[in-house]
Amino acid sequence: MTPSTARVTAVDTYDIRFPTSRELDGSDAMNPDPDYSAAYLVLRTDAADGHEGHGFAFTIGRGNDVQVAAIEALRAHVLGRSVDALCADPGALSRDLVGDSQLRWLGPEKGVMHMAIGAVVNAVWDLAARRAGKPLWRLLADAEPEWLAGQVDYRYLTDALTPEDALALLRRGREGAGERRTRLLARGCPAYTTSPGWLGYDDEKLTRLARRAVADGFTQIKLKVGADLDDDIRRCRTARAAIGPHIRLAVDANQRWDVAEAIRWTRALAPFDPYWIEEPTSPDDILGHAAIRRAVAPVRVATGEHAQNRIIVKQLLQAGAVDVLQLDAARVGGVNENLGILLLAARFQVPVCPHAGGVGLCELVQHLAMFDYLAVSGTTEDRVIEYVDHLHDHFLDPVVIRDGHYTAPTAPGFSAALRPGSIARYTFPGGAFWAADRAGRRKGEPA
Amino acid sequence: MTPSTARVTAVDTYDIRFPTSRELDGSDAMNPDPDYSAAYLVLRTDAADGHEGHGFAFTIGRGNDVQVAAIEALRAHVLGRSVDALCADPGALSRDLVGDSQLRWLGPEKGVMHMAIGAVVNAVWDLAARRAGKPLWRLLADAEPEWLAGQVDYRYLTDALTPEDALALLRRGREGAGERRTRLLARGCPAYTTSPGWLGYDDEKLTRLARRAVADGFTQIKLKVGADLDDDIRRCRTARAAIGPHIRLAVDANQRWDVAEAIRWTRALAPFDPYWIEEPTSPDDILGHAAIRRAVAPVRVATGEHAQNRIIVKQLLQAGAVDVLQLDAARVGGVNENLGILLLAARFQVPVCPHAGGVGLCELVQHLAMFDYLAVSGTTEDRVIEYVDHLHDHFLDPVVIRDGHYTAPTAPGFSAALRPGSIARYTFPGGAFWAADRAGRRKGEPA
Repeated sequence: MTPSTARVTAVDTYDIRFPTSRELDGSDAMNPDPDYSAAYLVLRTDAADGHEGHGFAFTIGRGNDVQVAAIEALRAHVLGRSVDALCADPGALSRDLVGDSQLRWLGPEKGVMHMAIGAVVNAVWDLAARRAGKPLWRLLADAEPEWLAGQVDYRYLTDALTPEDALALLRRGREGAGERRTRLLARGCPAYTTSPGWLGYDDEKLTRLARRAVADGFTQIKLKVGADLDDDIRRCRTARAAIGPHIRLAVDANQRWDVAEAIRWTRALAPFDPYWIEEPTSPDDILGHAAIRRAVAPVRVATGEHAQNRIIVKQLLQAGAVDVLQLDAARVGGVNENLGILLLAARFQVPVCPHAGGVGLCELVQHLAMFDYLAVSGTTEDRVIEYVDHLHDHFLDPVVIRDGHYTAPTAPGFSAALRPGSIARYTFPGGAFWAADRAGRRKGEPA
Repeated sequence: MTPSTARVTAVDTYDIRFPTSRELDGSDAMNPDPDYSAAYLVLRTDAADGHEGHGFAFTIGRGNDVQVAAIEALRAHVLGRSVDALCADPGALSRDLVGDSQLRWLGPEKGVMHMAIGAVVNAVWDLAARRAGKPLWRLLADAEPEWLAGQVDYRYLTDALTPEDALALLRRGREGAGERRTRLLARGCPAYTTSPGWLGYDDEKLTRLARRAVADGFTQIKLKVGADLDDDIRRCRTARAAIGPHIRLAVDANQRWDVAEAIRWTRALAPFDPYWIEEPTSPDDILGHAAIRRAVAPVRVATGEHAQNRIIVKQLLQAGAVDVLQLDAARVGGVNENLGILLLAARFQVPVCPHAGGVGLCELVQHLAMFDYLAVSGTTEDRVIEYVDHLHDHFLDPVVIRDGHYTAPTAPGFSAALRPGSIARYTFPGGAFWAADRAGRRKGEPA
């Protein structure tokens, strides 16, 4: 590419909300009625190529406006930046955003402000990959280990991962990468599905969807648990009967329990051979997860989708608190922080099984998991990407699932762009869907 | 009080920013130019008594608008509530706010949304104390142990603190409380001062302010460190020379270091006999603090002002990571969560020395520390409340420091109300100060 003088000219934001609560899609013990939402942004430039960068934070409804306000608080850091410089070193922007000495007080590196940073940083990676004409997984896997290692912020990590450690891991990751790429393009990366297991579904729907998942080639399904133990025992029995003894059955408590309750409840479900217990307690409770893991083995402990940053992940690994690390593409500070998280997991030899679902999380995490397979962990053994089968139609480059595997995306970018029609229809509160919804409610019609 | 039908009629919010960066007040290694700010709210009711409830989150400038938006996202939970019911059981509101299943995704219980909850909950306690005609410390200390124990959310705490543990601690706290109240009213609670030690001050100013602190009766001062080791050695030597060997000298790194660096740097300052090293690394790094504490003893490790919630505090105590717990009145979910934190600290026999300064933090934490003395820990030994000598004039009931002690407030409420004139002048961006500041900048005058 020839150098350009192009600059970022706009950071446009959108409050997008989908009315998923109407069907109990996504219902679990902590989140009975989520309206899956995205605090969405588009970076626009004056480059002749016309490329944009798309990114978002995922939320579940109320407060999506606060999340949008947080993205807008970052706008001044991005406007006017050289597009060449941004795309050559997204880590520089990431450090500037995390390091804003006044905004930092609102975290630091957690919650609304940190998710906003993640959305902006991910939009830059989307733009960089589009300009490079590559899907993000390939941009990352093609990059030099030295450059990749330089994209990670090692602050607060060096007692577990140094720049030298990272470089060694990335150099090792080059060995056999060509062969793995051939396999990736042929077969994709293995997925598991949560679609049968929402808490709001009855046993008939659970059975039907679980059987369909097996028929569709999935080797693992997941059930939401944690509201009522008797119900959970019945639902696990139902699911196990539907899928047989050889398909993995994961269970997910969505942070519902205290430590002792998590141990008691998980042991009560042990007869149904759960593969992992996910989010048994607070995502902040590192020592609690470690205590649970010691008590419920051989059931594995999985967490990470709400791990607020790399510092929590570091400690989960240091404390031996997890068997499975579930990174999230839109919770932490974007691709740069997730590079650090993938390297931490590799250093502690803990498999990464990304969290997905929501709005566009499947679209994003597939790139990170494929990069992990090609260039970091080097294996798909015991690694599965979560898959949930809704809202993909709203994306321009939706995921493609084939025989229980994510197919490697080929379109340039991070698969992050929503369809313009979906943006227009589901913008809250002014979009066509929500305007009609309000009008209907005023007339007393069911929503 | 006779029952009333009064309701909450308004939750008015204000973006208040003070231009503290102009004088380098508050400057430290992570926060070179803070503009101390408050995302401020007033609960108004239709009660005949005319009482209001005031609360705020403290921030340091940019992003205060995001913090205000987060408070506004909670408005619907508060409007229309019975004032009697709110004040009789603030814990019920606290649970509703923390438990909002959609807003919870934006934390959970951390960052911008959680500080917003803290601001609203604190405003309710301010209102409750005003209606009771008591300063908050007295409202709490007069309350029945059973009622107080019921104000704490034990979720995620029961492996360290059960309701039964809390009740036992609060019952024990009643013994000798009358005698302690007499001493509190006569003498107040001991303070230490950070005013001499801001990083932006030169050695002459440091010496002068340190000597004045000793003359004013303080037995501990605090120095900001962490930007440059040679400077810190010189400044610690200067401070120690100014205060002599018997006054305690605390040092505060404001999260500047990784674990190994914290250990190396603290050891290099050990010749000047620092009493504690504060925030040596990330506030999220429980295991890191534990490693630092093991390595730097007998220098104590202090942290907590950025501990995002009771779950982090629980683990700091379980891991033996702190000698001194520095709770903050406006970081966590308000008085209710801080009751839990005081009880946790008492259970682990770790002294609480509250963080203060900023905007109104001194005004708030004095109530919590006095309640701790009267009814939980029962002692002021090794307990000091931080004191910083700016911005008090903006409050209707500012703290009163006498001979190095906080004097017990007598005005009803939580001392949280800003003067109406200060609100009008420092509202951002429309208040008189900021409007004049912009006009001056346009003319090229110095700000």
